Amino acid sequence: MPRYTKKNYPLVDIRRHLETGPIVLVSSAWKGKTNIMTMGWHMVMEFSPALFGCYIWDQNHSFEMIRRSRQCVINVPTVDLANQVVGIGNTSGASIDKFEKFGLTADEAEEVKAPLIRECYANFECRLHDARLIERYSLFVWEVVKAHVATSPKRPKTMHYRGDGEFMIAGRTLNLSRKFRADRL
Amino acid sequence: MPRYTKKNYPLVDIRRHLETGPIVLVSSAWKGKTNIMTMGWHMVMEFSPALFGCYIWDQNHSFEMIRRSRQCVINVPTVDLANQVVGIGNTSGASIDKFEKFGLTADEAEEVKAPLIRECYANFECRLHDARLIERYSLFVWEVVKAHVATSPKRPKTMHYRGDGEFMIAGRTLNLSRKFRADRL
Repeated sequence: MPRYTKKNYPLVDIRRHLETGPIVLVSSAWKGKTNIMTMGWHMVMEFSPALFGCYIWDQNHSFEMIRRSRQCVINVPTVDLANQVVGIGNTSGASIDKFEKFGLTADEAEEVKAPLIRECYANFECRLHDARLIERYSLFVWEVVKAHVATSPKRPKTMHYRGDGEFMIAGRTLNLSRKFRADRL
Repeated sequence: MPRYTKKNYPLVDIRRHLETGPIVLVSSAWKGKTNIMTMGWHMVMEFSPALFGCYIWDQNHSFEMIRRSRQCVINVPTVDLANQVVGIGNTSGASIDKFEKFGLTADEAEEVKAPLIRECYANFECRLHDARLIERYSLFVWEVVKAHVATSPKRPKTMHYRGDGEFMIAGRTLNLSRKFRADRL
């Protein structure tokens, strides 16, 4: 299991860990129970406030917990957690405690009741910003209100889902910052 | 420049090339002009119909062309086109022809007037499915109506934006399909 030292991270910069499109684990809490789901359909929506949209299928056990609590934590795992990512996706929180089953640690968040997953590289505490798109598109629009990101490594080996049980693992880095216009980064 | 042989691709499977979170090039056409923009804020929203959401800033020259034509093509480039991806993001279609400037070829699409970018690995022809979120979130909800995907390689070296001029290039593949429950792929 990876062990990270994390620090507070500027909300305006969270796109650096979400725009690449990693599989994330969504943790929630409601009426004394916690849950985790695996999720790949999401997007950055605004720098400030730090908005983030994600699709949560209404057949997921997490759906009602998240909709009612109006909170969640978006946790970014690395490939070290590949078995947990798949196991969490395969099972339902209706019948098991996913933290216990998958050997993960629930840390207390600062701004929300949903727990942080300690073993993940980054944790983004979210409050529901807009519930109006849930019915039409199962789309939750979140405001990230607190961000915790590991200080090392700078370029984590995130997992990116290709479908059919196959993941692309984050590869090499290409730095083209010299070629960018400063206002278009 | 890469040269691909492409074939029609099942719409229900387009997530295989979008859910990983690649930078895409959005091509458009309006009143005899074409344009291209670089875009990284997007998500898969539904399998069938094949819905795809993306953020298009209202200050982009493409915004009005896309909003008025209600069409676009989402093109997936590989790292071979890194200079074009950055150059297209740095410039405005108000003053230049981006196809000509960046040496790209505009192929005719089948279902929309916006052009396909021949040198990209995949091209997804889109019609506007829902305009109601444009004003509030600059969010365009598209239905992909035709998909063209290269027959080789199966696992393209897509570019994933980390911010600050830095891209993550698609790395190795991890196949965990044996561990998945069949109904949860």
